Parts: sequence; structure tokens; C-alpha cells
Amino acid sequence: MNIAILFGGSSFEHEISIVSAITMKKVLKKSTLTYIFVSADREFYLVDTDKINSKLFSSGEYKKGKQLTLKNGGFFTEGMFGSKQVAFDVLLNLIHGRDGEDGKVASMMEFFNIPYISPRFEASAMSYNKLYTKFLAESLGVKTVPYEYLSKNGDRKISMEYPVIIKPVRLGSSIGVSIVKSETELDYALDVAFEFDNDVIVEPFIDGVKEFNQAGCHTGDWELSIVEEPQKEEFLDFEKKYMDFSRDSQVLSADISEELKNNIQVTFKKIYDPLFRGSIIRCDFFVVNDEILLNEINPIPGSMANYLFPDFEGMVWRLSKALPKEKNISIDYTYIHSIQSAKGKA
Amino acid sequence: MNIAILFGGSSFEHEISIVSAITMKKVLKKSTLTYIFVSADREFYLVDTDKINSKLFSSGEYKKGKQLTLKNGGFFTEGMFGSKQVAFDVLLNLIHGRDGEDGKVASMMEFFNIPYISPRFEASAMSYNKLYTKFLAESLGVKTVPYEYLSKNGDRKISMEYPVIIKPVRLGSSIGVSIVKSETELDYALDVAFEFDNDVIVEPFIDGVKEFNQAGCHTGDWELSIVEEPQKEEFLDFEKKYMDFSRDSQVLSADISEELKNNIQVTFKKIYDPLFRGSIIRCDFFVVNDEILLNEINPIPGSMANYLFPDFEGMVWRLSKALPKEKNISIDYTYIHSIQSAKGKA
Repeated sequence: MNIAILFGGSSFEHEISIVSAITMKKVLKKSTLTYIFVSADREFYLVDTDKINSKLFSSGEYKKGKQLTLKNGGFFTEGMFGSKQVAFDVLLNLIHGRDGEDGKVASMMEFFNIPYISPRFEASAMSYNKLYTKFLAESLGVKTVPYEYLSKNGDRKISMEYPVIIKPVRLGSSIGVSIVKSETELDYALDVAFEFDNDVIVEPFIDGVKEFNQAGCHTGDWELSIVEEPQKEEFLDFEKKYMDFSRDSQVLSADISEELKNNIQVTFKKIYDPLFRGSIIRCDFFVVNDEILLNEINPIPGSMANYLFPDFEGMVWRLSKALPKEKNISIDYTYIHSIQSAKGKA
Repeated sequence: MNIAILFGGSSFEHEISIVSAITMKKVLKKSTLTYIFVSADREFYLVDTDKINSKLFSSGEYKKGKQLTLKNGGFFTEGMFGSKQVAFDVLLNLIHGRDGEDGKVASMMEFFNIPYISPRFEASAMSYNKLYTKFLAESLGVKTVPYEYLSKNGDRKISMEYPVIIKPVRLGSSIGVSIVKSETELDYALDVAFEFDNDVIVEPFIDGVKEFNQAGCHTGDWELSIVEEPQKEEFLDFEKKYMDFSRDSQVLSADISEELKNNIQVTFKKIYDPLFRGSIIRCDFFVVNDEILLNEINPIPGSMANYLFPDFEGMVWRLSKALPKEKNISIDYTYIHSIQSAKGKA
């Protein structure tokens, strides 16, 4: 199978998308990979799979590659003798953050009729925005951490007790996030968060909370990952962060009861189906007093959470054959024909 | 000002989008109009403004026009001697229903850096889906009609009293909508609605409810239309429907108290700002026992609700100078450079 990897984008997570994309070479070994890079200024470039490495992008050398145009049915190179389509079977959307997770890529792939693995645009809109994720969870009967919402132009008053955690509603990878221990620190943390977004949510900071990650997808049958208990550190330096997005080896399952595991998986399925069909997502849960709370949905997780699955590549292949189909709308101009014939009679 | 009108699309409302687009010639008289048609199979065509009429599309004659490619900065014609950009100052998204109202056009215009009048991506996702509109209204403290949600694969049980109204969550222009007077009619109405969508909402049908429409936008200042009390008829035949999307003459304000008018406008502003900045929308409200309930948001109203505004063209010009700007993200590869220098040291 030939899998196109779409990565980069105009996103704060542009660089870690490059890291995620390179990692795919190590975990999709039986597939042919076709790398399509979205530059910071949103041009498409075909990148040679044999030569891909992070320096190609930081040096600007990628610009020597072929530039692509997005048209009905796929990506094309344009030349003196017409345009030529880039061949692949399915496209994997691996743009983290803006462009990839906010629904732009999904919208474009849907519009131009390109088969793609990614949350569809509604699923993107609901999971990219942490406030909308709360609405979604509530409508599905899934509990979340309590929150308050602040807007850039509104009052800066909160009523919950400290410590709290401040999050811009639309960013991933902890960008703009602060833990605030007392009221005196609130203003500065909000200044930081509002640098990145006009909307912010405030949640209680639960020190030492039990956290579990569950990834999965639906390929006709459920394919759920192991449940992971992620290791926590207050700060990750760049090398550890790099490691996190370039992970390619299996991790161990969390040491939890069958009952808890089962409850986590039931909750994951509630969130995933049917909104997230066509995508591989990771949900991060908190467990507080035996209650499962959704912390966040990662619509395009780092390195696609490959390290949580026993057969990641097989799953990608199966998913590419189980993608949601757009409803066919036939347009036959009945309505305009009727108007014309009515006018003719008048 | 040169305004590009984007219309058509792969939508059940393709034909009425054509009608809306043609109407713009009558109400944007001082502007130069550049017509860009999206065919049912989602190709872009430049349409001659002097020759536009509904037959051009129903006959397929539009295919003789120039085909366009969407690229960074705009739409281009491709020829032997390179590509040439189609000139315009701002694009007006006039695709009703799928493609236009669901966020696809907004995503593409944003991605390709084209100035456009339309709800942005998140606003589209929230207003195109009637269930998400309920979440949005609730979060803003705006009341809506009570509802129950049914999914295609779920139970077909409702607990509210008849008569009820059944609506597919994602369609406009009353497509797939039925009024159900008793339980015996429910199954058939649901069959009809599920033909169009996998998700349906059920609301009480309030016979003779007072209905008011308010359109508007924010161009630096608020520009609100008159409040209209739409005329109701049980069924609109195709000529009346055509009239409705080709309206170009002013209507009278609803005969209501200043207090009610004021409350409707305050509610409109709550919904519009800041989510809908950059767009002209129409909100349809019910008034029940002096309480204002949001019925629906029309993110791209028929003929842009031009007939409700005293100076529609001036407003479009002002809005085109007050469009939201995307946040600038600078990508300097700091992170990848650091990894490379750390690797060098190792």
C-alpha cells in the first residue's frame, strides 16, 4: 500500500509534525511512503522518502523538491506538458495543531475527494477546541474536569479554588499552559495564554492525578490500543519532547484492574463512534475517586500513538479500507428547469 | 470594489445558490462582480458576469468557461505560458448547505490566504449542525426550543408530546423536515429524515408560534438589519421558493415593541460576537411567552438577506475591510536546530 504522509503546516507544532512524520518510516515498513510537506507559508512539496531528515526542512533545502497543486482527486505536479498526479492509495494527515487538527486538512481532502485518515471536519472542530470538547463529552454522557471559561475581552475573575491550570482552548502540546498556585499569579498566566488564543479555560489542578491514555480506531471492528499510564515530569526538555514524538517501540500496559480498563475502553468508544470514524485518536483520561474524566482528545496524536498498538501498520491498512464515505448528492437542475418552464408558460 | 461570488457546490442547495448568486447583480450595483462557480463535481469555473443566468448551469454550458485552480493567494487560470491570477478584492461565500455552510469553503479560503466574507471554520461547524447550535446557544446563555436527539442506529423512542417536528441536523431549507402529529407517523418521518442525515433532532411543533428574523454583522460597528416577521405558509411551491432566494427589495419592519426588538438584537449580538466575525448571518427566533428562543442560525442566508438592510452594498464594502486576521505563526526551526546541535555534541 502506498501511503501519503501529509505533514508540516502553519502550526506552532510544525516542527514536531516533522518528527512524527520521520518516525513513520520506522513503523510503516511494509508500505510505500509518499511524503507531502506543507511549508510554513502553505505551499505543498513532494519530499524524497529516501532523503527525508529534519535538516532538509530547517535548511530550506526542501524547496528544491517538486511543488504540488491540490486539485480534484489528488496532488499534481505541473509542467510544460500538463499536470501529473502523485500516486498513493490513502493520505495520512499528520499535521499537529493548526491546519491539521482544526479541520482545514479534513475539509480540503473531503472537497477534493482524496481518501484520508484523519478526524473529519466536525470531529476536528469539536476536538481542537477544548471548550467544544466539553460540550461534546457532556452530550455523550462522558464526564470531564470542571471548568470556567474566560475570553480575552471579558472579566478576569474565576470562582474556583487554587491551584488551577490555565489552557488556551485551541492549542496542543502544552503551549501557553500554566499552573497557577494563587491569585497573584493569575494575571501573568492569563497574559501568556491570551498571547496564543482569545479563549481560555481554567480547571482545578489536581496534583498527582492518575492519568491513562487510550488510543484506537474502528476498522469495521474495534481496534483498541493498550491502556498506557504516561510518565509524568514537571518539565520536558527538548530532547525528551523529541523522544516523545519519535517513539516507535512498544510500551507496557498500565497495571490496572480489568474493570477500570474496561470502563476506560467503553468511554473511549462512546467518544469515538461515530464522530471520529476514519481516524486514529488518543484520548487522555483522569481517574478521580474511581470516576473516569475525559481530559482531552488528541485528534492527531504524536507519531500516531503507534507505540501503543501491537500491529500499527496492519491497522492503518485496515482503516484505509474502512473510511467513511461522503453522501452522494445528485444535482439534476430539476428546480431550475421547473422555473424555466413556468416562465415559458407565463 | 471587485467582489468574487463563490456559488454552486456539492450541496442539496446547489440550485438555490445559483439563484442567490444571480440576485447579487441586482443589489451589488456599484461593485465589479467576479463569478466563480463550483460545479456539482467540485471543479471551479469562471463565469462571465454579463452572461450569467440560471440556464447557463442547467444546460452545462458553463463548462465552456475557464477552469480555475485554487492556490496560495487565489484562483488561477492555467495556460501554456504559466498561470494567471483572477483579480478580486474579497470573496463572498454564497454556497448554501454542504461545502459552503459546513466549513469547507472557510477552511480553504483560510488555508490559501484569500480574504473572504463567510463564517469562519468553527462558526460554520457550530451553526451547520443543529445539535451543536444548541450546545453553542446554551454556553452563551441563549435559550432554544427543547429537543431530543436520535441517531440512525439508535432507538426510535421519543418522550415529548405530539405534535413534533423532525429535522436532520445538518441541512437547511427545510430538506427532510416533517411535522409529526402522532406516534403512528413517527417512523415514516424518521425514515425520510435519515435519508438525508445520520442524526436527527426532534422538537415540539408549536403551531402559530411568533417568529422573527434578525440579520447583521460587525464591521467595526454593529450593522443590524430591521427585524422581520416572516410570512408563513404550510407549503412553498417552487416559484415562491425561487422568490424567496431571489428577493432584492426591502421589506417592512415587524410591528413589535421597542423592548422586544431590543431583546432580539441583544440576543443576536451574543450569538454573533466574536465567533461569527467576518460574516453576515441571519438568526431566526421564536417568541414564546415573551421569551426569546433561538430557532436557527443561517450562516449563509438566502440572497444574503440583502432585503433586510438599508445599505447592503455599503455594508459588504465595510465588512470586507474588517475581516478577522489569522494569527501569525513564525516557524524558525529552533527546536530542530537544538536537536541537531545536541546530537552534534554527543
